[in-house]
Amino acid sequence: MERSFQALALDLLPRLGVYRLKQRTKDICPFTLFDLNNGELASLGFNDAQIRVFQQPPMAKLESVQQWMHDGKNRSVISYFDDNYPALLKEIASPPMLLFCQGNDALLQAPQVAMVGSRAATISGKETAKRLAKELTLHGFCVTSGLATGIDSYAHQGALTQGGPTIAVLGSGLNVIYPKSNIALAKSIVEHGLLVSEFWPNTPPNAPQFPRRNRIVSGLSLGVVVVEAAGRSGSLITARLAAEQNRDVFAVPGSINNPKVAGCHKLISQGAKLITSVADILEEYPQYAIVKEDISKQHSPALHFVDNVKPDPVLDSIGYETTPVDIIAQRSKLSIEQVLEQLLTLELSGLIISSSGGYIRTKEGV
Amino acid sequence: MERSFQALALDLLPRLGVYRLKQRTKDICPFTLFDLNNGELASLGFNDAQIRVFQQPPMAKLESVQQWMHDGKNRSVISYFDDNYPALLKEIASPPMLLFCQGNDALLQAPQVAMVGSRAATISGKETAKRLAKELTLHGFCVTSGLATGIDSYAHQGALTQGGPTIAVLGSGLNVIYPKSNIALAKSIVEHGLLVSEFWPNTPPNAPQFPRRNRIVSGLSLGVVVVEAAGRSGSLITARLAAEQNRDVFAVPGSINNPKVAGCHKLISQGAKLITSVADILEEYPQYAIVKEDISKQHSPALHFVDNVKPDPVLDSIGYETTPVDIIAQRSKLSIEQVLEQLLTLELSGLIISSSGGYIRTKEGV
Repeated sequence: MERSFQALALDLLPRLGVYRLKQRTKDICPFTLFDLNNGELASLGFNDAQIRVFQQPPMAKLESVQQWMHDGKNRSVISYFDDNYPALLKEIASPPMLLFCQGNDALLQAPQVAMVGSRAATISGKETAKRLAKELTLHGFCVTSGLATGIDSYAHQGALTQGGPTIAVLGSGLNVIYPKSNIALAKSIVEHGLLVSEFWPNTPPNAPQFPRRNRIVSGLSLGVVVVEAAGRSGSLITARLAAEQNRDVFAVPGSINNPKVAGCHKLISQGAKLITSVADILEEYPQYAIVKEDISKQHSPALHFVDNVKPDPVLDSIGYETTPVDIIAQRSKLSIEQVLEQLLTLELSGLIISSSGGYIRTKEGV
Repeated sequence: MERSFQALALDLLPRLGVYRLKQRTKDICPFTLFDLNNGELASLGFNDAQIRVFQQPPMAKLESVQQWMHDGKNRSVISYFDDNYPALLKEIASPPMLLFCQGNDALLQAPQVAMVGSRAATISGKETAKRLAKELTLHGFCVTSGLATGIDSYAHQGALTQGGPTIAVLGSGLNVIYPKSNIALAKSIVEHGLLVSEFWPNTPPNAPQFPRRNRIVSGLSLGVVVVEAAGRSGSLITARLAAEQNRDVFAVPGSINNPKVAGCHKLISQGAKLITSVADILEEYPQYAIVKEDISKQHSPALHFVDNVKPDPVLDSIGYETTPVDIIAQRSKLSIEQVLEQLLTLELSGLIISSSGGYIRTKEGV
């Protein structure tokens, strides 16, 4: 049997992860297990169900992965026992046996910073995630997250404003992008980054898989940035995992009146590093930080669009922070009714977004 | 010479504070110095100018303080050598020789929490200061601050919503309230708390006196709460003094986009306790915390006023957080123009205040 098939088969051993497999095999190369007979395998401690995998591997299942790799571009599977398995991920308590990859799998070797946070983040949290991710990318880091809605999505998007790279770790198989609303984002990530999953390609998204996914997000990364997390939140679990994995935990503070940052404040109180800008992250990793050119300021279609239109007093009155309608009216010297009409046009053209406190410009900056 | 005059005279010894006076006198009661002759004083290390104070005290100056005490109610002077000099203040490196008091000087013995912050605070910072001060008061603490504009004023006001107590430490003499805009506030504090100064009653406000004042604010207190402070700010000096005095330092976090909280974030990074509610302060002082009845909810004239008017859809649409005008219109189901008209009336009647992001209710809560 091909070694690539053997690598897949090792992941099918019932009740046996990387850790216990290594305990059983010690110095033996696990691929040689396929050459052993029943007695030899039993003497190493493998049970009947496990021995069956070595003796009669489920070929159809293994071939389906081979087929999956042939069916699309840039698909690969990296085994724990491969040389290009990411070194940091090897260090964690329960490393995945396999990494199914779609995109540029060399990125797994890049210095990564994870970004996680509330799925129901506030607009300000989302903008912060996007800005920090963009700036991390500009300084040579790959931003790793979980492709969830909210902070995850904005983290990936922020990296993509610079053409990536960004890594999304899925809690489902790579054929089953979840949530569906992020299918387009996942496509961009395949082009400019990498989708990763420890789950076989057609695995549906099941709840218990998402916390497991989180250990890979932090396990791949030097540190984890938590941008908005409520008092009890999955992001706090990721932060705890990160701390257990000896990874840095960074948390962004916010207004004490915003329940979406209670978790971040809790983390800071427990020792996470309070960060207010990307510089606070960079100073922890001087060995990796570089400076790239900001490509979002070049050849921006949005910029061209703006160049072709006359100055817009309503747009000019809206900041990159939430700007309330009455302030827009005051600044633009227009009536509230006139302003409301034009806000709709600007929102439809994507130049501003509505938030609970007013409107925010979307162009350029992030 | 009366002992009260002697106590005042000790503060007039040139270039000799409490610390060096104690070094010179060791076990000798400093009041007996007035009975010694030139040779005896010189042998203790006093110079000619200092000896002159013992031998020929400036009686007119001392009598002017006696006159000042007679001229107003509840005026007193407490000397470092008096039994009712506050014990915590005695511990600091450079305790004031005298405390000129106006109001209830017994409050100096009460457990105090200091609150400091930006003079140019944001509306949200001011509301936080007011709310925390009110809640500290409800839990039996005396809120101590510096009577400056911004956070200081709102801290005092928050305590006064409960009838006090609150202590204001001045950087000028008690006859020279500064800033003038706080004269009315100072009057309330005299009635429901205490004004304190180490400066003689007619001392004008000079810049170097304000940092000196800060050491007393923190020196009187168990801990110091910093609510909004820019990256370089006097409040950070107070926080540093507090830490040097072994007092707790608490800091309120905020949005990373608000430059007015950069100082708080810096303090948290340096080890100050991040607080999001009064509970985070109370848990440090279980021995002092009690629970009083919230008197701002009883017999409130504003409440009576509201009882007499019919339900107001605009007022009801405004929260204790900044509420933007378009949200108020949406909630009240009125047109923006109608809302704007009524907002003006509500603002003039003091039921709401305008902030940069919309409007905030002022009644009850704080």
